[in-house]
Amino acid sequence: MNEILSVNPEDFDCTVQSGVTRMQLNNYLRDTGLWFPIDPGADASLCGMCSTSASGTNAVRYGTMRENVLNLEVVLADGRVINTAGKGRRTKKTSAGYNLTNLFVGSEGTLGIITKASLKLFGIPEATVSAVCHFPDVQGAVDTTVQVLQCGIPIARIEFLDEVSIDAVNKYSKMDMKVAPSLFLEFTGTPSSLDEQAALVADLCSMNNGSDFKWAKDPEERSHLWKARHDILYACMALKPGSKPYSTDVCVPVSKLPEIIKRSKEEITKAGVCGPIVGHVGDGNFHVFFPVDQNNPEELQKIQEVSKKMALMSLEMNGTCTGEHGIGQGKRELLVQEIGETGIQVMKQIKQTLDPKGIMNPAKVFY
Amino acid sequence: MNEILSVNPEDFDCTVQSGVTRMQLNNYLRDTGLWFPIDPGADASLCGMCSTSASGTNAVRYGTMRENVLNLEVVLADGRVINTAGKGRRTKKTSAGYNLTNLFVGSEGTLGIITKASLKLFGIPEATVSAVCHFPDVQGAVDTTVQVLQCGIPIARIEFLDEVSIDAVNKYSKMDMKVAPSLFLEFTGTPSSLDEQAALVADLCSMNNGSDFKWAKDPEERSHLWKARHDILYACMALKPGSKPYSTDVCVPVSKLPEIIKRSKEEITKAGVCGPIVGHVGDGNFHVFFPVDQNNPEELQKIQEVSKKMALMSLEMNGTCTGEHGIGQGKRELLVQEIGETGIQVMKQIKQTLDPKGIMNPAKVFY
Repeated sequence: MNEILSVNPEDFDCTVQSGVTRMQLNNYLRDTGLWFPIDPGADASLCGMCSTSASGTNAVRYGTMRENVLNLEVVLADGRVINTAGKGRRTKKTSAGYNLTNLFVGSEGTLGIITKASLKLFGIPEATVSAVCHFPDVQGAVDTTVQVLQCGIPIARIEFLDEVSIDAVNKYSKMDMKVAPSLFLEFTGTPSSLDEQAALVADLCSMNNGSDFKWAKDPEERSHLWKARHDILYACMALKPGSKPYSTDVCVPVSKLPEIIKRSKEEITKAGVCGPIVGHVGDGNFHVFFPVDQNNPEELQKIQEVSKKMALMSLEMNGTCTGEHGIGQGKRELLVQEIGETGIQVMKQIKQTLDPKGIMNPAKVFY
Repeated sequence: MNEILSVNPEDFDCTVQSGVTRMQLNNYLRDTGLWFPIDPGADASLCGMCSTSASGTNAVRYGTMRENVLNLEVVLADGRVINTAGKGRRTKKTSAGYNLTNLFVGSEGTLGIITKASLKLFGIPEATVSAVCHFPDVQGAVDTTVQVLQCGIPIARIEFLDEVSIDAVNKYSKMDMKVAPSLFLEFTGTPSSLDEQAALVADLCSMNNGSDFKWAKDPEERSHLWKARHDILYACMALKPGSKPYSTDVCVPVSKLPEIIKRSKEEITKAGVCGPIVGHVGDGNFHVFFPVDQNNPEELQKIQEVSKKMALMSLEMNGTCTGEHGIGQGKRELLVQEIGETGIQVMKQIKQTLDPKGIMNPAKVFY
């Protein structure tokens, strides 16, 4: 089940079996000049990424799995096999019938098992450049993000790291960045358009009191920067040797980020735990990667409480209790508060009609 | 029901009631520097556009309604009211529960009535430039399109018109374009990035034997060009005075466009009817706007037969029987062929569970 079944370079699509991973696909595509950009960090299987509606650092430019799946083959609870867009179909758009594809994307395995996926592909950008900038507060980083988006700058990545995360990265990845709320940015395009973007973004950063703005143009320097970003979970764990990660994520309208990050930090401090914050700020989405001592149930409980409070704050601010991690078992109660009783009834009606015996990933998403 | 309930410029979103139209919203937004880009041509209501999953000329850049709706308020068949993403939620992404929003987008009113929609907004591009280029055949126009996409040129619109459509436009909109398969293109960005795009695209066109490449940089000239494109339905009707339009659309993987357009033209010629072809070529989607004499049932029948043959050809080529017009009543049988019996069963199970009495837009989408 780990075969790449077809790649159609002229049509910017491919079809893969359920075991094919993101990196396997991108290695295979290398000679075509194309890539599949959705990148949740880990080398996940693509059909798993469909099931959980994965996103990650590139979502600000390319969207999440929701926007990048053309068709799915799914085995239903009663053994029927369907192709959500019809067998072999792989058009960039369609208005033929219900959007079954996006009913299964993000359903966390509770409606059926995804055995094949047809995905969109994109041209690899001609040139890439990255940058880091540090701010006196979260507001400056968020204002810069909003202005970058307002100017229509085709930003490829825009990632927020708070001072705790920067400290972790400095120590783990041997860097010497200023310990302050920061943005990691990436731009793609033609070489001359990058120069233009560079100038504009440097201006916006300094308007918002950003400092130590630093371009990483050299591929090695760039790759060191993004490797550091991708290793952040390990960096956070290294802050407390012997700890295991407990991560949570919420997503709010971008303008609410400064407030929710401020209040989350207050809760983290009050609980006396370590909670580095890292966010896909262009989407309003951020994570806390708590390093937790497995032998300290009291600490775990405190972390779970902070995590729940953050989700409730997010709901207060028109946000969601999870931007990309999903509901699983831990956020089932929060999902009811987020969607409302009637919306949950409708979701359960769909679950009931497609899986009346409840055999598909039981006890996940709903009680 | 025609109120714009909120606009959040920093969050790039708005919420509208069901009667608000696309142009009403864009007029209202004018001072914010933002716009809602999905443009099916007509000044449709935004909730209607949700219901039919509208797209149009800007979809190659901004996607269709599927990618641009954040939340819907829906009245269900039994009177329950739900908010598909939870009341008031308007995050750019979420992985909380099933994607009910995209179950209702494109369901053509068969699952419930959409009474409110929260939509994504975008910054109005700094500068815009358009161009026209003519080709000896469809292949040249399609190859150019694929190469433009491969190069990652941030094309805003790329529209195909066959020689019959160009003739109609020349006559109706008083233009003197070369009567040949043509591309209408639009680019957006910063002024200097437009120059760069210009040079690259002019090269690609000439590599594919395009000729008479002409830039429309001046706003008046540009607006004349796109008005001509938007008036094309009327231009096609004017080819046969007194006629009414019968339009159809299909969508295939882009590489199949030359073949399906060639074969469609053969069918049109064989039937002896007039059938100008106009396409959103970047998405693999195209229309035929048949002018039909209402007093000639034989002609109507021929047109229906050509339309059906085109849909079947599209299905043969991994395509869909409708890229943006929807199923309605006319394509219900084709939908079964496209999705397959099992997929249709699943769609009908969902319809049955949400509308057991079949009172929501009865007899549409399914038999």
